[in-house]
Amino acid sequence: MNQDNAGIKLFALNSNLELAQKIADDLGVELSDTTVHHFSDGEIQINIDTSVRGCDVFVIQSISDPVNENFMELMVMIDALRRASAGTINCVIPYYGYARADRKTRPREPITAKLIANFLTMAGADRVVTLDLHAGQLQGFFNIPVDHLLAIYSQADYFKKNGLDKDVVVVAPDHSSVKLARNLAECLKAPIAIVDKRDSKRVDKNTDVIGDVKGHQCIIFDDMIDTGAKMADAAAVLKQAGATDVYGCATHAIFSGNAVSELKNAALKEVVVTDTIQVPEEKKFEQLKILSVAPIFAKAISLIYHNQSVDSLFNKNDNI
Amino acid sequence: MNQDNAGIKLFALNSNLELAQKIADDLGVELSDTTVHHFSDGEIQINIDTSVRGCDVFVIQSISDPVNENFMELMVMIDALRRASAGTINCVIPYYGYARADRKTRPREPITAKLIANFLTMAGADRVVTLDLHAGQLQGFFNIPVDHLLAIYSQADYFKKNGLDKDVVVVAPDHSSVKLARNLAECLKAPIAIVDKRDSKRVDKNTDVIGDVKGHQCIIFDDMIDTGAKMADAAAVLKQAGATDVYGCATHAIFSGNAVSELKNAALKEVVVTDTIQVPEEKKFEQLKILSVAPIFAKAISLIYHNQSVDSLFNKNDNI
Amino acid sequence: MNQDNAGIKLFALNSNLELAQKIADDLGVELSDTTVHHFSDGEIQINIDTSVRGCDVFVIQSISDPVNENFMELMVMIDALRRASAGTINCVIPYYGYARADRKTRPREPITAKLIANFLTMAGADRVVTLDLHAGQLQGFFNIPVDHLLAIYSQADYFKKNGLDKDVVVVAPDHSSVKLARNLAECLKAPIAIVDKRDSKRVDKNTDVIGDVKGHQCIIFDDMIDTGAKMADAAAVLKQAGATDVYGCATHAIFSGNAVSELKNAALKEVVVTDTIQVPEEKKFEQLKILSVAPIFAKAISLIYHNQSVDSLFNKNDNI
Amino acid sequence: MNQDNAGIKLFALNSNLELAQKIADDLGVELSDTTVHHFSDGEIQINIDTSVRGCDVFVIQSISDPVNENFMELMVMIDALRRASAGTINCVIPYYGYARADRKTRPREPITAKLIANFLTMAGADRVVTLDLHAGQLQGFFNIPVDHLLAIYSQADYFKKNGLDKDVVVVAPDHSSVKLARNLAECLKAPIAIVDKRDSKRVDKNTDVIGDVKGHQCIIFDDMIDTGAKMADAAAVLKQAGATDVYGCATHAIFSGNAVSELKNAALKEVVVTDTIQVPEEKKFEQLKILSVAPIFAKAISLIYHNQSVDSLFNKNDNI
Amino acid sequence: MNQDNAGIKLFALNSNLELAQKIADDLGVELSDTTVHHFSDGEIQINIDTSVRGCDVFVIQSISDPVNENFMELMVMIDALRRASAGTINCVIPYYGYARADRKTRPREPITAKLIANFLTMAGADRVVTLDLHAGQLQGFFNIPVDHLLAIYSQADYFKKNGLDKDVVVVAPDHSSVKLARNLAECLKAPIAIVDKRDSKRVDKNTDVIGDVKGHQCIIFDDMIDTGAKMADAAAVLKQAGATDVYGCATHAIFSGNAVSELKNAALKEVVVTDTIQVPEEKKFEQLKILSVAPIFAKAISLIYHNQSVDSLFNKNDNI
Amino acid sequence: MNQDNAGIKLFALNSNLELAQKIADDLGVELSDTTVHHFSDGEIQINIDTSVRGCDVFVIQSISDPVNENFMELMVMIDALRRASAGTINCVIPYYGYARADRKTRPREPITAKLIANFLTMAGADRVVTLDLHAGQLQGFFNIPVDHLLAIYSQADYFKKNGLDKDVVVVAPDHSSVKLARNLAECLKAPIAIVDKRDSKRVDKNTDVIGDVKGHQCIIFDDMIDTGAKMADAAAVLKQAGATDVYGCATHAIFSGNAVSELKNAALKEVVVTDTIQVPEEKKFEQLKILSVAPIFAKAISLIYHNQSVDSLFNKNDNI
Repeated sequence: MNQDNAGIKLFALNSNLELAQKIADDLGVELSDTTVHHFSDGEIQINIDTSVRGCDVFVIQSISDPVNENFMELMVMIDALRRASAGTINCVIPYYGYARADRKTRPREPITAKLIANFLTMAGADRVVTLDLHAGQLQGFFNIPVDHLLAIYSQADYFKKNGLDKDVVVVAPDHSSVKLARNLAECLKAPIAIVDKRDSKRVDKNTDVIGDVKGHQCIIFDDMIDTGAKMADAAAVLKQAGATDVYGCATHAIFSGNAVSELKNAALKEVVVTDTIQVPEEKKFEQLKILSVAPIFAKAISLIYHNQSVDSLFNKNDNI
Repeated sequence: MNQDNAGIKLFALNSNLELAQKIADDLGVELSDTTVHHFSDGEIQINIDTSVRGCDVFVIQSISDPVNENFMELMVMIDALRRASAGTINCVIPYYGYARADRKTRPREPITAKLIANFLTMAGADRVVTLDLHAGQLQGFFNIPVDHLLAIYSQADYFKKNGLDKDVVVVAPDHSSVKLARNLAECLKAPIAIVDKRDSKRVDKNTDVIGDVKGHQCIIFDDMIDTGAKMADAAAVLKQAGATDVYGCATHAIFSGNAVSELKNAALKEVVVTDTIQVPEEKKFEQLKILSVAPIFAKAISLIYHNQSVDSLFNKNDNI
Repeated sequence: MNQDNAGIKLFALNSNLELAQKIADDLGVELSDTTVHHFSDGEIQINIDTSVRGCDVFVIQSISDPVNENFMELMVMIDALRRASAGTINCVIPYYGYARADRKTRPREPITAKLIANFLTMAGADRVVTLDLHAGQLQGFFNIPVDHLLAIYSQADYFKKNGLDKDVVVVAPDHSSVKLARNLAECLKAPIAIVDKRDSKRVDKNTDVIGDVKGHQCIIFDDMIDTGAKMADAAAVLKQAGATDVYGCATHAIFSGNAVSELKNAALKEVVVTDTIQVPEEKKFEQLKILSVAPIFAKAISLIYHNQSVDSLFNKNDNI
Repeated sequence: MNQDNAGIKLFALNSNLELAQKIADDLGVELSDTTVHHFSDGEIQINIDTSVRGCDVFVIQSISDPVNENFMELMVMIDALRRASAGTINCVIPYYGYARADRKTRPREPITAKLIANFLTMAGADRVVTLDLHAGQLQGFFNIPVDHLLAIYSQADYFKKNGLDKDVVVVAPDHSSVKLARNLAECLKAPIAIVDKRDSKRVDKNTDVIGDVKGHQCIIFDDMIDTGAKMADAAAVLKQAGATDVYGCATHAIFSGNAVSELKNAALKEVVVTDTIQVPEEKKFEQLKILSVAPIFAKAISLIYHNQSVDSLFNKNDNI
Repeated sequence: MNQDNAGIKLFALNSNLELAQKIADDLGVELSDTTVHHFSDGEIQINIDTSVRGCDVFVIQSISDPVNENFMELMVMIDALRRASAGTINCVIPYYGYARADRKTRPREPITAKLIANFLTMAGADRVVTLDLHAGQLQGFFNIPVDHLLAIYSQADYFKKNGLDKDVVVVAPDHSSVKLARNLAECLKAPIAIVDKRDSKRVDKNTDVIGDVKGHQCIIFDDMIDTGAKMADAAAVLKQAGATDVYGCATHAIFSGNAVSELKNAALKEVVVTDTIQVPEEKKFEQLKILSVAPIFAKAISLIYHNQSVDSLFNKNDNI
Repeated sequence: MNQDNAGIKLFALNSNLELAQKIADDLGVELSDTTVHHFSDGEIQINIDTSVRGCDVFVIQSISDPVNENFMELMVMIDALRRASAGTINCVIPYYGYARADRKTRPREPITAKLIANFLTMAGADRVVTLDLHAGQLQGFFNIPVDHLLAIYSQADYFKKNGLDKDVVVVAPDHSSVKLARNLAECLKAPIAIVDKRDSKRVDKNTDVIGDVKGHQCIIFDDMIDTGAKMADAAAVLKQAGATDVYGCATHAIFSGNAVSELKNAALKEVVVTDTIQVPEEKKFEQLKILSVAPIFAKAISLIYHNQSVDSLFNKNDNI
């Protein structure tokens, strides 16, 4: 980082202190002092221990499990910063929760992802910096600027370094992630395939793989791993269809419910995720590989702070 | 209830189903079908199983522990109702959490009670119906109408029925609740006293009681019991000052931390609260008496639905 | 239509008078008198020739070519209706233009679909009724209710009636429309395939078809046909891959540029679209089949007017 | 221009590139790279080819014919700039279209000029710089600052330089422009007269001229020339009333419909307009004289950029 | 009044109780009980003595001297009504003060008329009903509906009944009111003339009258009489120019400063105003004639309440 | 003041020019030229005689009697500053009027304090700097930052310097001001007492003093003195209860109605107020002592201007 980042005020809330610390280290700044604790009745209390008047403040918080707690921490923090006369309030949200509640699929459903966007704006956020949104359209839920970063170049680099840019097929585990698979395939100059699950239940013997995977290595590619079932099922189907080694790759490691057990027991040689969501020690397992997105965020924060374009982050050949 | 309430759509979220059911019974209506559950990653999912187009909807939810979960449930519900074209969305909030975060007492503090108000409005609430706000000024946090109900007449009635309107002193457990104590004293035609705690720490041997309590029964009166420490301390000080029987009374039974143990072991003959917050079985104890506010809310909802003034609820002599 | 729709005020602007008239006929109401003309300097003038005070008004306008003219007509109309004290203003937008500008794909791009949404709301719309949005997430661009209708059941019915529910493969012409293809396949109990175009340029001899189409009839399914190139290319690739008859199907018939010539000369047995966008006579061609969405909109308007749920419109077995 | 304007980011959209280039030249800056084109379906696409983060951006666009296209170009541009984190977005609108739709003159009319103002603000404009608004009250349609510039000193200078400050009468072509005529008359120390057209139809033999024009030169003065009929009619009436040479002068050259033919054939020695609206070559005619407002806008932009008062622009004796 | 107006809730504040009572009488309803008084420190206190839940409320208040007091009374009243859950709040503002502060004429001026409009909306008004706005453009200061009524038909009727539709000239007392004069002239089939005051100071021997008044009766017509100087000066100039009887006519009788003395001593046979502003007894004088606008407002309120068009009020031949 | 305050633009409106001048002197800056006058019809006119483009502007105005005039002056000034492109508009409001109208205590009451807050924000204020709000919760009426200053350290200093930190009791004159009394008592290490007035009428022989005052000096402490009755009554009751010297102390000297006569004739040795409200000469009396809050505001303005924390102002030991 060859710029002067000393004026950046960087705050970390509770969801992902590890990533926040890495970002701070990359930027060469200290995390500003703040304590966020919960009263015995569950209410959030925030103490900001340094003046923020007129400062460009960056607050790092993933809206990950416990999602409502983490979201409200962020809201309360923004309110405190605004009332404390912060110059600009930039919300760095490595994982934007509730992103799947982005449209009504049945009558009388909420669109919680929009609610989150409205609340961020209403609370006083001036900008959102996030990564690999579940749907790019979520940018349009905001009227304030959204800097939407991508992990794909880091992910592609990882596979290239491990020789997975030859004789490999990128596989979409369902119909929604085909575009995503195509993007990674583009980086690896690979063909794609799709697991064609007919309804929302789990795969069975009738599930097809569309595309040719027989005798090839496969990378199942998705934006998030939640319960792990989709990834595990896809791996099983691919194996059945004759795939050799199967890798799972996704940005956001939600790992809810039985995810760890599902993944451990799945036909997956490796599960590659990032640290947008902090994976607790007890959820780590042998095949798990965690790539850090800290360099991406650090570079973005520095560019934003210096009013420079973040274009360079979208240049595949750029060494972050 | 002698009005036709059949058109009222009443929804209950998870914080206080018991009270919601009582309100529904008092109104003579069914609770409308809805299920609110949390995905394995903590995100809230809501299914509303009946059309609400053009209806006057009342949603009952206390913002009580787990406060952020309960609050977000309410927000998501309002979003769903608005998008489902509800006619009016009336939020019935028996306990308005975060109410003590209503001003900055130190630099860089949030005013979370205002945030809550802004979010309610932004989500789409048309009206708030609540009871015994920590500070009446919270009404002014809203631009939408707030119907602010009072439990004091029910509380006073209870003490009158139990003979506590004679030879009794109403005691404010700290400096902030003197006005409140004066109000109950007015109903009971009783004098008041104040526990004069010098700083925010707990009482000690130097704590004074201002006012004459020696040889009298005392009712310590407050709006809420959180950790129970304030109530327990006040009781101890009053006993030391020569009070005979000491009663504790408050509207909102937060009962966080060691509250139950504090209260059980305190010099309190009875602890009288209401059911704005649902007290789980394991937190109930012998001296605890719970008055129901269901009749107050039921009557208010019916009056609001029929576009009638809620004045009558503020008439002391009215039989609710 | 067995309900009393007499109170509905239905206005049609200039983009699609034919569809508007059909909707009016289905509803059994007259289109209300209004004239929208353009001054010689291009400014829009609107005369509304009937009182709308307190009425539920429905305005029908597609945001189709000339897209900015049609959009501004709608905006000016809403402004006039609001200032004329309309009770509710319901915008019926069969084709929501600018829908592809729904996220930033490169730096410094606008999100025009959100701008459109903001302007609709700002102008005074109370509700949007639309059909087959390019992305379901566009619903979340609004805070007002959006009734999102679907043409898929009509489309599936059409193919069933023509015997295309046997020995047919539904084909996604690119990676973004796989989910869509899966939905139609579900209705027809058919398998799917995907045209795997590697970059944004047109198909060439290297373009793959993923999935098995050899010896089968194919329906290429998309939400819209713009220049026709994607549909024509997909047809060519499918033929090359051994498909027998190839049908093209999409909801919105934008038909811009050389679309008509592309489609006429393509290897398409039939091109099935709807009338959300009015196809001028000179753009009609032999293989073109236009299904009307008037019954869907008429039913939705009637249900909305009567404050009834539009759920039934999402019931596959319902005879619209 | 003796100030350092290098930091100004100046963008020109399609309505009046000629004027924009002149303003850029006067400021001594380059127009920033941007391309605005229309897709084949009529939708606007914008590419901004330079970073604008934190910059003071000035966008030059007249809302002139094709008025809806030009307006939407401006809206889409503002959206893109806002999302690209521009520091301030200053809209330079030499001609503010729809300005005559500034009030309801009949029931159920829109007030489109207000709609335009609301959309500018909603899209993200921080300031409007405009010239000779049809009614000064349009400034009040905005809550953001409006810098309202005047062409009158340039216009008066032109007439003075051509000896028209002696023996001349300034004539208002209708009742609405009397105040305007008085202003120019003030600059030229001339008397005024009024063409008293009785209704909105064209003049006839009964049309009066109020005031003394016999044997005098006349300048008919208005804010805009639309179809040219009003100007031509006024000239005819003045001639009939004994005027010698008659000049027409207005700021905005809309020239719609048959304007050119009307003006060419009218009894007008010269028609003096400005370049707020670009007059295409085919609409130019012998008697037409176009004054440039570029110096006025250039000076205003420079003053605004340097946070200096624009007062000096309202000083008649100042050499712009 | 042949409609059932019983459901109308009509409130009068302090500015013009006389007019309010007349409107109530015309409507056949009682004024609702409310008391507005000022505390000894000048703060306004309002007691509304009847429930307004769900009602269509009409509040009558002119923003006349003391203009800030009267305006704040209206604001506080609207706030109270909104919080008391009024159904719709309709502000009937016979005289809209600050209307002349409708644009910036010098640098750093406020546009107070817009501020007033913003505050009305922000406080919670749903509609404004007003009469003879200083500039029609003020309607565009609002996004809510404005019903703009006209006194001109009543004024014209008055002059017709008094034989002043023959041999009369309608005179604009300055350049801004020529359009207004033309309108009255149209009703009376009369010619117009203009007092051509060269600068903002008072008239002197050089002031011209443009148009022919010699030997004719004159009606000086304006929207308001403030200090009376403009009206008095115009009368003097007309007399000097040979006019016979001179009448002054305006809608709003502000009568500030020395207005009464100016008018009494002016060469005016009669001064005809309306009761939009209450003229106190001590300001009445012999030549003063006050027409009541109560029938116009009563009819408008009734039509609005019954969701009927107010078009009929703009029909000259309608008997109000 | 050891900072460079030269860039501060300080404006004073009419309510308290004396305090504004003192603040300017303390800051070492001139008050910027502005004239605020009222037209003869009562409307406010403002001339700002210096450019404010991009400047940090501080406007000093108490919302004191005549409260509506002063408030509207502030509103009109903010509107003018915003339209004149001020950088930030900071409202310095030494006395925030209407603060007691901060909640509904009866049905259908306004919450005027919130209205004031909404209007400040709507007009364009970026920040409010105020002192000793009637209720701290008023901060939450705003979404913009509020710097809430305190006079208590100056008040405590005054009493300490005059030897009143020994053998003194701080007395709350009613139930609402007990917390306030406790705060001053804390500074003076004194006990407290309360005047227990049973209802809202004036004290009588039944009024109790709770707490021990016999033989002690007393300081009656409140936030404001309005009619003086509460202070005078409290003094009488304390004397009756055996108090020796009685002092009255409050921040805001409203002095409405008969306040001066009440206070002069009361059993008060001294009445200590501040200059947040300007006390006119005719209202000054022998026992009155006015402390200036100018140093507090000057320091706050300087800190805010330099983007420094105002924490130091809350440090009791800091020499302001």
